Amino acid sequence: MRPSDLTLTAAAEAIRQRRLSPVELVDSVLARIAETEPHLNAYATVTAEQARHTARHLERELMAGHLRGPLHGIPMALKDLIDVAGLPTTASSQVRAGHLAATDSTVTARLTAAGAILVGKTHTHEFAYGLTTPQTRNAHDPGRIAGGSSGGSAVAVAANAATFALGTDTGGSIRVPAALNGVVGLKPTYDLVPRDGVVPLSWSLDHIGPLTRTAADAALVLTALTSQQPPEKSPSPSPLLPSPLRIGIPRNHYFDHITPEVETTVRQAIAHLSSLGATLTEIDLPLTRYLQATHWGLMVPEATAYHEQTLRTVPDLYGADVRVLLEAGALLSAADYLRAQRARTLIRDSWAALFDHVDLIAAPATPLTAALTSQHSTTWPDGTTETVSDAYVRLSAPANITGFPALTLPVGHDQAGLPIGMQLIARPHADSLLLHTAQAFERSSPEANPSL
Amino acid sequence: MRPSDLTLTAAAEAIRQRRLSPVELVDSVLARIAETEPHLNAYATVTAEQARHTARHLERELMAGHLRGPLHGIPMALKDLIDVAGLPTTASSQVRAGHLAATDSTVTARLTAAGAILVGKTHTHEFAYGLTTPQTRNAHDPGRIAGGSSGGSAVAVAANAATFALGTDTGGSIRVPAALNGVVGLKPTYDLVPRDGVVPLSWSLDHIGPLTRTAADAALVLTALTSQQPPEKSPSPSPLLPSPLRIGIPRNHYFDHITPEVETTVRQAIAHLSSLGATLTEIDLPLTRYLQATHWGLMVPEATAYHEQTLRTVPDLYGADVRVLLEAGALLSAADYLRAQRARTLIRDSWAALFDHVDLIAAPATPLTAALTSQHSTTWPDGTTETVSDAYVRLSAPANITGFPALTLPVGHDQAGLPIGMQLIARPHADSLLLHTAQAFERSSPEANPSL
Repeated sequence: MRPSDLTLTAAAEAIRQRRLSPVELVDSVLARIAETEPHLNAYATVTAEQARHTARHLERELMAGHLRGPLHGIPMALKDLIDVAGLPTTASSQVRAGHLAATDSTVTARLTAAGAILVGKTHTHEFAYGLTTPQTRNAHDPGRIAGGSSGGSAVAVAANAATFALGTDTGGSIRVPAALNGVVGLKPTYDLVPRDGVVPLSWSLDHIGPLTRTAADAALVLTALTSQQPPEKSPSPSPLLPSPLRIGIPRNHYFDHITPEVETTVRQAIAHLSSLGATLTEIDLPLTRYLQATHWGLMVPEATAYHEQTLRTVPDLYGADVRVLLEAGALLSAADYLRAQRARTLIRDSWAALFDHVDLIAAPATPLTAALTSQHSTTWPDGTTETVSDAYVRLSAPANITGFPALTLPVGHDQAGLPIGMQLIARPHADSLLLHTAQAFERSSPEANPSL
Repeated sequence: MRPSDLTLTAAAEAIRQRRLSPVELVDSVLARIAETEPHLNAYATVTAEQARHTARHLERELMAGHLRGPLHGIPMALKDLIDVAGLPTTASSQVRAGHLAATDSTVTARLTAAGAILVGKTHTHEFAYGLTTPQTRNAHDPGRIAGGSSGGSAVAVAANAATFALGTDTGGSIRVPAALNGVVGLKPTYDLVPRDGVVPLSWSLDHIGPLTRTAADAALVLTALTSQQPPEKSPSPSPLLPSPLRIGIPRNHYFDHITPEVETTVRQAIAHLSSLGATLTEIDLPLTRYLQATHWGLMVPEATAYHEQTLRTVPDLYGADVRVLLEAGALLSAADYLRAQRARTLIRDSWAALFDHVDLIAAPATPLTAALTSQHSTTWPDGTTETVSDAYVRLSAPANITGFPALTLPVGHDQAGLPIGMQLIARPHADSLLLHTAQAFERSSPEANPSL
């Protein structure tokens, strides 16, 4: 096993015990990047020289007896919407040509202070406004989409070309590519992770969060993202499922229009949680027929507001798919937007009431595995047709509308070998319950843990 | 002195000592209503029978030794936007003909539980969308406007036709009529007082708060509005000014375009606060040229969103002034609204930073005293003309945009005998500092306290 293959948790333990040096680990990850980039193209920029320089500095700190915490010396990739002082934030768009960030975003500063080492900036669907990330290839099949918009981050982590990465999620942009590439993706509670210094898509729906190979890794990154002082020693949560744990299984929405393989695999994973001691309860989700209109009604005008000036001055620098969405946003009325805001309040309040009866909701992360790059839409057995993007957003958007924390973890593969993700959703600020449950699952299931 | 002339604080003390009974007090206030309504028209509905019934019930409670707290047996008026079970909430509009509220609003329920007795519902400018309340006359001069939109509430309190009242404030609708009628009006911190069961004008700017004859009275009402359990005994705050107290005096905006009599009187009141021990500091308010557009950009589309359906079905039932504003709201784009939201964030953050250096801002409540009912606009010495409504909103809207608590208290009269109000503004959740300062002022100044 090469150092680049280690989970964050395993690499941190090896560094803590001085069995692995930050320089070795960074060199190994950079070698892996060199190996995979020609066919994956996950990175917009690789910062090899700066990464090696920082690794040597952090190695000297270790030799002097100073360990910052579990992220000390860990190679990370940041989605290229996240400002890093001295680097361009391209948003994978020609509109940003010549951009240079003057200061670090808060999340960059917190992770850097915790000892993480930037190895590069990863590709996003242009300005995070799409679900495919067409520049980048799926880590499991180059003929398949990476998913998006944090496609580069998911592929880099899945390919062992970064030990962890950050993404952003406005309608599934962390969870969709995580699921399609077989890694863990966490969209934390709204406003838990500061968004300043990160290019917005839609500020009332945007979330920043980690993509990692395990839920244990995601917990370590979230700690660093939410507190500038990492704990003195790594937390060692119980290997057992939280108890009692009441899991709600949706009767509607999440299991409508999904492939049989996704359904079977996710229901098996839920049965596994039950075998670990969770109580399963069927639940009915209210107001689901308003979800799509609410999500679009919030996202589309907010996105256009941010791009208002460049859409007027340099419209041709946008990709055609993104430009048409931005132009559509200019046609919406304040009444449309306010109707969406009011619907959001009704949805959030009625979904919040579900958590009087259950602790978590378990559901598929996506209705289908990674689509072929040539595939535009899918037809369901009842004859309805849905674009691939709409299908991916459908199961993700509720947690953006409500702001509830949501996580996807890999729970199996389809017959083509493509990963399937299970999504767990919790009440606001129960992020640690999500992570704890996912860790108990992955410890007890070889499927979910690549290192077992 | 008749019981109806007592301040809430004095009446509560008399009831506590069994020197005054709730029945006597209610009868006295109802008699005063009968005396004043023919020329003031403050009330949309008077609930005499129900008030007497409740007074007898509360008197029996007292005789049985149970005192609910300082509001026990106190007659109150509620602006007719506030639901009371079994009564219509007319919003002073024909659009609401036939309305009947099924349940109490939260504020009604809290005040009723605290022992307050509803004597009637007071007139509002139609749907709170205006600054005059044309049905109602100023308590000091029948040829002058009541101010609005909580005109009925302010006039009832000023005329001793209610011991206290509630109003709502979206751009000055508590503070403007309070100032023009010589009473205290408090717009609490945004979201401190629950708005459910109250007809909205613009939910991101709306606030509910008390109109009273003294700041001490306002403090008693706010306690009941914010906690369902009143304190065992009335608080007895220090009669002194909080110390140290740094008061910011605006160099711009609040003293631009105001009448010389308002300026002189408010500056004298500020000098009085200084003589009581406050430190005065001149401050510059940022982003003031965006205030009006931001306020309109938020209020107008939010108001239209609420009225969308009735504006389509029964447009002719609205007054012409309100209908044109509602129709204008339908023309605004989501981009306009989002620009206003972004401006609001910039204004709120930059104004909040002022409170690193001062504890309160002191300023006039309105740039001019009560206008003649026939007066549409005013011309300032530099030749600029402003509508009376725009002038009244100008000094009030900042506290709605920012959500900061703000209070007006009477500090003098102009040569025509019309009241002048001083406005105090504090950081979020410093409502008690506002009230404490205003109480110290009124205890030391005969001008501000009608009972001295």
